[in-house]
Amino acid sequence: MPDLARRLAVARGDELADVVVEGGKVFSAFTREWLETEIAICDGYVAGLGEYAGKEVVHARGKYVVPGFVDAHMHLESSKLLVDEFARLVLPLGTTTVVADPHEIANVLGTDGVHWLADLADEVPLDIYFMASSCVPASKFESPRRALTAGDLEGLLARRRVIGLAEMMNYPGVIAGDPHELEKLALRSSHVDGHAPGVLGKELQAYAAAGIGSDHELSTLEEGRERLRAGMWVLIREASAARNLEALVPLVEEFGPGRLAFCTDDREPEHIAAEGHMNSIVCAAVEQGVAVEDALVMATLNPALWHGLGHLGALAPGFQADLLLLPDLESFEPELVLKRGQPVEEIPRPDVPDWVKNTVRVQSVANNDFQIPWEGGKARVIGLIEGQIVTEALEEELKIDDGLAVADPSRDLAKIAVVERHLGTGRIGLGFVRGFGSQRGAIASTIAHDAHNIVVVGVDDGDMARAVQRLAELGGGLCVIADRGVQAELPLPVAGLLSDAPLADVVKGSEACVAAAEALGCTFPAPFQMMAFLALSVVPKLKITDRGLIDVDRFQLVSLETD
Amino acid sequence: MPDLARRLAVARGDELADVVVEGGKVFSAFTREWLETEIAICDGYVAGLGEYAGKEVVHARGKYVVPGFVDAHMHLESSKLLVDEFARLVLPLGTTTVVADPHEIANVLGTDGVHWLADLADEVPLDIYFMASSCVPASKFESPRRALTAGDLEGLLARRRVIGLAEMMNYPGVIAGDPHELEKLALRSSHVDGHAPGVLGKELQAYAAAGIGSDHELSTLEEGRERLRAGMWVLIREASAARNLEALVPLVEEFGPGRLAFCTDDREPEHIAAEGHMNSIVCAAVEQGVAVEDALVMATLNPALWHGLGHLGALAPGFQADLLLLPDLESFEPELVLKRGQPVEEIPRPDVPDWVKNTVRVQSVANNDFQIPWEGGKARVIGLIEGQIVTEALEEELKIDDGLAVADPSRDLAKIAVVERHLGTGRIGLGFVRGFGSQRGAIASTIAHDAHNIVVVGVDDGDMARAVQRLAELGGGLCVIADRGVQAELPLPVAGLLSDAPLADVVKGSEACVAAAEALGCTFPAPFQMMAFLALSVVPKLKITDRGLIDVDRFQLVSLETD
Repeated sequence: MPDLARRLAVARGDELADVVVEGGKVFSAFTREWLETEIAICDGYVAGLGEYAGKEVVHARGKYVVPGFVDAHMHLESSKLLVDEFARLVLPLGTTTVVADPHEIANVLGTDGVHWLADLADEVPLDIYFMASSCVPASKFESPRRALTAGDLEGLLARRRVIGLAEMMNYPGVIAGDPHELEKLALRSSHVDGHAPGVLGKELQAYAAAGIGSDHELSTLEEGRERLRAGMWVLIREASAARNLEALVPLVEEFGPGRLAFCTDDREPEHIAAEGHMNSIVCAAVEQGVAVEDALVMATLNPALWHGLGHLGALAPGFQADLLLLPDLESFEPELVLKRGQPVEEIPRPDVPDWVKNTVRVQSVANNDFQIPWEGGKARVIGLIEGQIVTEALEEELKIDDGLAVADPSRDLAKIAVVERHLGTGRIGLGFVRGFGSQRGAIASTIAHDAHNIVVVGVDDGDMARAVQRLAELGGGLCVIADRGVQAELPLPVAGLLSDAPLADVVKGSEACVAAAEALGCTFPAPFQMMAFLALSVVPKLKITDRGLIDVDRFQLVSLETD
Repeated sequence: MPDLARRLAVARGDELADVVVEGGKVFSAFTREWLETEIAICDGYVAGLGEYAGKEVVHARGKYVVPGFVDAHMHLESSKLLVDEFARLVLPLGTTTVVADPHEIANVLGTDGVHWLADLADEVPLDIYFMASSCVPASKFESPRRALTAGDLEGLLARRRVIGLAEMMNYPGVIAGDPHELEKLALRSSHVDGHAPGVLGKELQAYAAAGIGSDHELSTLEEGRERLRAGMWVLIREASAARNLEALVPLVEEFGPGRLAFCTDDREPEHIAAEGHMNSIVCAAVEQGVAVEDALVMATLNPALWHGLGHLGALAPGFQADLLLLPDLESFEPELVLKRGQPVEEIPRPDVPDWVKNTVRVQSVANNDFQIPWEGGKARVIGLIEGQIVTEALEEELKIDDGLAVADPSRDLAKIAVVERHLGTGRIGLGFVRGFGSQRGAIASTIAHDAHNIVVVGVDDGDMARAVQRLAELGGGLCVIADRGVQAELPLPVAGLLSDAPLADVVKGSEACVAAAEALGCTFPAPFQMMAFLALSVVPKLKITDRGLIDVDRFQLVSLETD
């Protein structure tokens, strides 16, 4: 506990504050007023609002002073950045706290990886809270390095930074009363994030009755209304791929912002660098007609309330002094960010230990590993839909060459493979995908939700094999191969998910990969982002893992041949 | 944990609900809508809203179905009833949960008494949660049987039913940073009720900065605004004596009901029997222009939110099925109360053990114990103010008889004494009071906040002595004495605070005492209630304890003689 006696002396005016913020209009998240008051800060906490004297003065005349933004739900790994670089990126944008589900790293590095992330979080000024990843693997069709048990979660929940159970993606299991899922829920029944896209009616009642308290996967007003009535918080998501703000904004007018909060879920580094982070959601909400005060509450106090972070999300006595000076209420680009009452200083770079690298272990692959003997007939083909991670389940005749099914660029049919890469089992799932537009070569990535095996899409088996080899050499990342040669690559050596390089290098590498893919004919926007979701077996309709094609609606493995 | 698998099966519609409530308009505390839906109940919890079939059906056609009321702050002991009888009284009125500060019994019976109350609470269908009494004694001028230490509170907080720290009445100590108070706050810094009448400005900032999260002692809009801006919950109190609803109702319109909740604090049994409990506050709020939906939220979801009772205060999946059928939205008198999905059945009477009785231990008192040698000059006199527990500090010449200061009924000056009654020390504080109007005899009570020593007011020393003796014989209670004879009495044998008799007997005894007091000339309304607060050393201005007169503003013992 900080020195409460000193804080009280400052509040009473008996001692000088460390810092006084003076002259600004201070947003009260509780009353939604703009108060003309000073803020006295002591040991990183607000001691009092009123007239105070301090050792330092921050002049805020003409500025708006608001609490730092709290991201209600996100995955650090989507930024491809280590925690320190992520903090360097988002703190100046006004995000001072994030609640992260570390399930990407948990799929690769187990609970050890989560503990390592949490240790890193201790070293950065950004407040990072974790939810214990409830669904590793996301389904029985996925192959992480190891599955997390209820016992693993119990251990994670014992850590101070781990405050609840992360998104319960196995919603069919929860609704059906699967004992394994109920065992997890029993660990922390009062604070569990949800994940239930499209679930309505009695199934939603069951999901809420299980104690799931939020959802961020909804995209319609009907879903929003049902969730609010069921007592769930609605976390309005604006990710890089899935963007739900526009569809859900009417909920604010209909019911008030009381049980609504904003979250970023998955934001790519390019996206954050170009558009911003939580501040861009506030900005977009206001542009779409939400009152500034409501938008701010949804980005500050409300996420803190849902997560029981009683010292965050507001500027009032006893709250942590995370605050932003805004020159206006339109751009929401902070002119100054105080974290625990201080400007953010240089954030040290952490040592990255060997054990979090070198996670890519594959058997030697060759052209013939990607061969598909085929005698004709219709095949199941994954069909991409722009702007969605849901896919179509197509049925197509395949081009046959010497008894083998092959890619057919003229009909935009590429081959897709998922190669198990944690244990070197040699397990490979094979299929076809339509929508990328690629004419030659192959693109591959070790980011492939949620198990993060290697996903590779190509029109040439040799280039596909080379891509997998190259990712194994890099220890993970993205790459583009043509004529057996590397056209572009982004190394992600940490768990095959994260770079240990600065943001600029990551963005540059990422952009180079996209440009190289385009040079191979790829016409799908953000192709690596899309490809990363083709292995996610809990989002409809047709997906692929190292175990083969998954009919998500039937929730079973299916053959390449149609029934 | 209840059988979650079965609850989910009911929610899905795969199993019959235990009970279905059908045909009513169901209040959603989250969206403030009236939903035309059925409610499926399983094992005492709401399984789902929608169309369901059940083993039993509760017909609610034309009725309003609302969550049971949650009292945000109260003292069970004010009802003078044992827990079972209190439950019999308030459950039919719609109060299904109370959050109680057991500080009356804690002053008399220490932590043992609190544990005993909590054990009794296990046996009644009313949900009773406790806050650990933070200020026993209320100040150093009061003499409970023993003081509670931070260690005592730590032990109490380990109990499931004890959910936070009760009203921090020693607000001067908290604001000043008294290490003993800070030690208590460190035990449960996130959930502490406040008590800070009239505190404003920097002092309020300090009180809030200490982590105090609510207040129920405010009586002005200015106090309300400052508390809300400081992040505190405002608990609007309608007690028997202190009634703040009318003054604070404008806060609802100004800021919305988001951080407001209702509480009864101290309600006498007569008051509850005649006017109701939480339902009467909802009724009065609506009469005063508050929207029905807002009033309901302040009586249901909001108190549950403040206290972190995530399963209470709403009708939604996973919430406890405490619900009321209301025939209209004006009287708020429930036609049916379901507690955990069932009508309330016969509540068993508990055994009352000997150790909670026989708490009154006084030395033999005689006339001369109440004698005050006096040589003339002005004396400090407590002046009653109708409708308030604050008193005036008067200065009066005293009537002298044979070298002794005596009561002077012609000038409405009665003698008042507080007799230590826990340890039989013989300590007696003596003074004078104006306002009761008594012409003869004496009235006495073992209810004397907060230490609950014996308070006696009389115009005759012999009758005062007899009153004290009589209360010792009864083991506590109220009595009215004239000419050495008992005119009326109400035995309160449990800790000298509670009856083990039914409500009707308690009300009858209480009314008889008031009538007998009136027969002795007493003109002050509810004289015993007023007398009970004259020993409370933390409410201004002039009070009296067994240690003597207290100038509360100066917070020190003062002599009878003026300075």
